[in-house]
Amino acid sequence: MNAAPFSLKTYLEGRKHIINASLERLIPTDRSPAARLFEAMRYSLMAGGKRLRPILTLAAFDATNKTGLPLERAMPFACAMECIHTYSLIHDDLPAMDNDDLRRGLPTCHKKFGEALAILAGDGLLTLAFEICSAFEEGHAAPAEVRLRAIHVIAQAAGMNGMVGGQTADMELEGTNISFQELDYIHDRKTGALLRASVLLGGILAEAGPRDMQALVDYGTRTGLAFQIRDDILDIEGDEKTMGKARGSDERKKKATWPAVHGMKQAKERMQELCELAIQDIQILGDQATPLKAIAEYIMKRDH
Amino acid sequence: MNAAPFSLKTYLEGRKHIINASLERLIPTDRSPAARLFEAMRYSLMAGGKRLRPILTLAAFDATNKTGLPLERAMPFACAMECIHTYSLIHDDLPAMDNDDLRRGLPTCHKKFGEALAILAGDGLLTLAFEICSAFEEGHAAPAEVRLRAIHVIAQAAGMNGMVGGQTADMELEGTNISFQELDYIHDRKTGALLRASVLLGGILAEAGPRDMQALVDYGTRTGLAFQIRDDILDIEGDEKTMGKARGSDERKKKATWPAVHGMKQAKERMQELCELAIQDIQILGDQATPLKAIAEYIMKRDH
Repeated sequence: MNAAPFSLKTYLEGRKHIINASLERLIPTDRSPAARLFEAMRYSLMAGGKRLRPILTLAAFDATNKTGLPLERAMPFACAMECIHTYSLIHDDLPAMDNDDLRRGLPTCHKKFGEALAILAGDGLLTLAFEICSAFEEGHAAPAEVRLRAIHVIAQAAGMNGMVGGQTADMELEGTNISFQELDYIHDRKTGALLRASVLLGGILAEAGPRDMQALVDYGTRTGLAFQIRDDILDIEGDEKTMGKARGSDERKKKATWPAVHGMKQAKERMQELCELAIQDIQILGDQATPLKAIAEYIMKRDH
Repeated sequence: MNAAPFSLKTYLEGRKHIINASLERLIPTDRSPAARLFEAMRYSLMAGGKRLRPILTLAAFDATNKTGLPLERAMPFACAMECIHTYSLIHDDLPAMDNDDLRRGLPTCHKKFGEALAILAGDGLLTLAFEICSAFEEGHAAPAEVRLRAIHVIAQAAGMNGMVGGQTADMELEGTNISFQELDYIHDRKTGALLRASVLLGGILAEAGPRDMQALVDYGTRTGLAFQIRDDILDIEGDEKTMGKARGSDERKKKATWPAVHGMKQAKERMQELCELAIQDIQILGDQATPLKAIAEYIMKRDH
């Protein structure tokens, strides 16, 4: 009897389900003088994201797990990536930043809870990421050295030389005549760093060897850039209803994007090439990497 | 020959000097598309704080270090506490929060760099704290289990159940008729959690036993509360020039404070009592705790 063919849709739904169940438990629901903070954090965290970053962590873990380690080992780190992703969206949406009213079809955090609480909710989610990763758990936790290394990868990807640096560069260079190198700098950090880190974490927690880790680094870098190019394309060609946000915001804000700098045709070709190379990168991981391969294909076709 | 008597002034100056030297190395100065972010982070981090939190970490480390462990072991964690303290000041000063123009006699981060960069600089400093604590260092680093535990203490103290929660409660209860319990909730978290954690970290990194750790917990809790009461008193009676900020901001913002809720006389008595109890808490640590004792005395007398 043959195994059923791999269905990405079923896979993504299943993963999203267990990730949401874990995220659901992170933020207290009890009455407390800080209850509004918990509410704001939960509102944005549970607003129905694709959960791509935690899914990548779990998929990379599965792809390099050679000794049957339990998936629970990777779960806190997967959840941490979603907390960091959500915090970055909350702060990016603020009036002083992108000043966006809608996110995933819902009012943004500051529209719903006010600016002060939105700032604090972002701060709380960023800190929560590190709280989860360093929590003492029974049974399934990875060795301390491994967890420390994973925490460092997250902090580097999220911080001044990663996402926060990329966000700054993006803002500082808005409306200027940007060079190819500057565009690469922004893309590599603004979204790329966090996506690459999500993939790396899986390998770190599975205690993958150097050859497998290198495959994940390459895959993570290429899919990260492809993801950003797809984002830029969707901002021009996407369907507003499916995306849950308005189109054309990059152009209005004079943001540097791949289609704007290199042209739409070039952007689409480059995105496709990156995804194909990413799939080649992980050939050496064999069948265990089937979900990772399917995710690379999904990234170039996604409509939101 | 007798040793020279302990001078707190000399001690604090010496510690401030080595802490500043370590902080100085944390943020890159090179040209990069994110250079303005580094500048904003450095501006606030090096704006001349008292460095009380890192000094407490180092003093608690010295007080419980029984086997001659190098101070370098505690230094990254001491610096991390200053990064977190600075980030919290930057975000608290924002227009959507306390809307303060001056901090330590200088323009606040958003006054100097704009709101967007101030938000990002705060985010960058918070993340940097965890980057430092998890970095791989040669030679002096504490065992991974110890560092993981220290990271968890920091994240808990800074996050939704600590500082960010306290800040939220403070804001949510502004202008209401606050209960004693609610005031304790705010004080215990808003400043207390971070000060207590600073003390705890020293013990964790010195691998102190349970009896010594309990002494540090009690000392940290009491000095933390005394520090906040002193802050509230200074906001009413302090010298604006010495403090580098305007007096009376709590009253203007209808903030719940110890003097407002319990009266000034009660507040001063309670502060003094807390500092005396804190000194008793660490008697068992002997002469190694001389700096910690002197810091408790300093907290109730400080003028800024």
